[in-house]
Amino acid sequence: MRQAGRYLPEYREIRAKARDFVDFCLTPELAIEATLQPIRRYGFDAAILFADILLVPQAMGQSLAFVEGEGPKLEPVRTREALKALNVEGVAERLQPVMETVKGLKTALPETVALIGFAGAPWTVATYMIEGAGGSDHALIRAMAWSEPSLFGAILDALTEATTAYLIAQVDAGAEALQIFDTWAGSVPAPLFERAVIQPTAAIVKAVKAHAPHVPVIGFPRGAAAHLKAYAARTGVDGVGIDHMTPLGFAAEAVPASTALQGNLDPMLTITGGEVMADEARRLVRAMEGRPYIFNLGHGVTPQTRPEHIAELVAAVRGV
Amino acid sequence: MRQAGRYLPEYREIRAKARDFVDFCLTPELAIEATLQPIRRYGFDAAILFADILLVPQAMGQSLAFVEGEGPKLEPVRTREALKALNVEGVAERLQPVMETVKGLKTALPETVALIGFAGAPWTVATYMIEGAGGSDHALIRAMAWSEPSLFGAILDALTEATTAYLIAQVDAGAEALQIFDTWAGSVPAPLFERAVIQPTAAIVKAVKAHAPHVPVIGFPRGAAAHLKAYAARTGVDGVGIDHMTPLGFAAEAVPASTALQGNLDPMLTITGGEVMADEARRLVRAMEGRPYIFNLGHGVTPQTRPEHIAELVAAVRGV
Repeated sequence: MRQAGRYLPEYREIRAKARDFVDFCLTPELAIEATLQPIRRYGFDAAILFADILLVPQAMGQSLAFVEGEGPKLEPVRTREALKALNVEGVAERLQPVMETVKGLKTALPETVALIGFAGAPWTVATYMIEGAGGSDHALIRAMAWSEPSLFGAILDALTEATTAYLIAQVDAGAEALQIFDTWAGSVPAPLFERAVIQPTAAIVKAVKAHAPHVPVIGFPRGAAAHLKAYAARTGVDGVGIDHMTPLGFAAEAVPASTALQGNLDPMLTITGGEVMADEARRLVRAMEGRPYIFNLGHGVTPQTRPEHIAELVAAVRGV
Repeated sequence: MRQAGRYLPEYREIRAKARDFVDFCLTPELAIEATLQPIRRYGFDAAILFADILLVPQAMGQSLAFVEGEGPKLEPVRTREALKALNVEGVAERLQPVMETVKGLKTALPETVALIGFAGAPWTVATYMIEGAGGSDHALIRAMAWSEPSLFGAILDALTEATTAYLIAQVDAGAEALQIFDTWAGSVPAPLFERAVIQPTAAIVKAVKAHAPHVPVIGFPRGAAAHLKAYAARTGVDGVGIDHMTPLGFAAEAVPASTALQGNLDPMLTITGGEVMADEARRLVRAMEGRPYIFNLGHGVTPQTRPEHIAELVAAVRGV
């Protein structure tokens, strides 16, 4: 809920035009405008498609609603039967409105602004599919991963297949880079990380690269510092997003120098603003001199962010 | 809310005897019984004092209530004035009922069962003090840490002083080891980890060791794998608790071989039970052969845990 320009007054204005949040994401005219708003205001180097990671399970047939103040609610998938009732094939076709958004953005964006497509990583999307809601404990999916590894694996595989098709369709529609958000990678039990995060991500990256070798893929295994080395070494991603809790120096040691690092600024600094924020942004950029680095926050922009702080942040980064 | 025997039917029986949860913790007769219940059932090698990390801010004068189904609610401390209104001195005296519990336990426990005292680490307790509630985002404390470092530091210092006195009083009452729970260490912005976690923990350990050099101190910086090396090197703790998300091999590399490791089993395994749980427990014990290791979960026992699974777990560990 924190992506793109959701903290902007002009976003809240167009948001009111859609019936609900899913409808908003699937109305190309509105999603294009939501993607463009922060670009117009701040002149970022790249735009990220306005969409939601839960569009994929919805396109697979899982019911999804965003309840005001409570976040997403889904009819949980916890049995082989519930999984079988879902439809993996044709997900990209059913998400055609997203592809229309991507195409529209390609026309609307200046040549110099890159367009980033994205999807949630299978583990993170599976937390919502299985738990039926947000949260940070993920007790049900962890219990299932241990006690029903075959069902758990089948859910991951279904999501891997659907997500691969969805991302490839974004590339075909015009996305120039892709990001895979594994927001909840930090809650995976350590012995299951390979199966839950690395395998599905590697499979998606491999398939995307086979289709479009030139498209860079950025992975974001949030909260999983202990696994960064393995993640960078074995998923095939070209860049790794770093959350605000992981020292950038630690990440630079864990990730090969040829792999880009991205992020790391605590999003809370965009609430406080001022010299503290500017100093911290400059420190990160300077620390990364000599290796590929994409300046970004350590997670999404928070709703309480004051728009003028983002302008100050851009100026600080550009001024280094 | 997950400590000791809270998943046991006999616990729920005595819990009903107290007016509220704080009252329960501060009634020695009940807290002694709650501490002893799991020891009687399972014959653990050590007992951990039944108490709550929020007794310290309450003893400092902050209002505290546990709301059924919602967790703790506190009158937030967010200004210099609110901090000044608190009373750091005399915290250990006001927590005298806890010391009565410790004394009673020393008498009641068999000679062979070690008694572990504990407190919350200043950062973790400060998240509740400043946010006024639980949660995992910790937006307010992070914003304060960046924008009002002096107030933030003063709150940490007050908690460090109170916690030190509280832990020393536990040792004087008979605690044979201490644990410092930093449940939310994982949400600290990376550049502030030294100030928020390492400094306060090191100060507490130093003061405790000056008073009682023989008492081992275990620190638990949950979710902070990227900082384990610095934490082990600079806080002075004798042991480090490892959450379920961090591979034990990663922890073993980050922490000196003379420092004990503790924990790591995913608590969800105590819900599923069976051979998966037993195998995983045995794997951890065997992986730690040759270095000091305290078998434990990666966090508290969850309320849904089935008591017979804990018995199976003890048997599996003892059988290695």
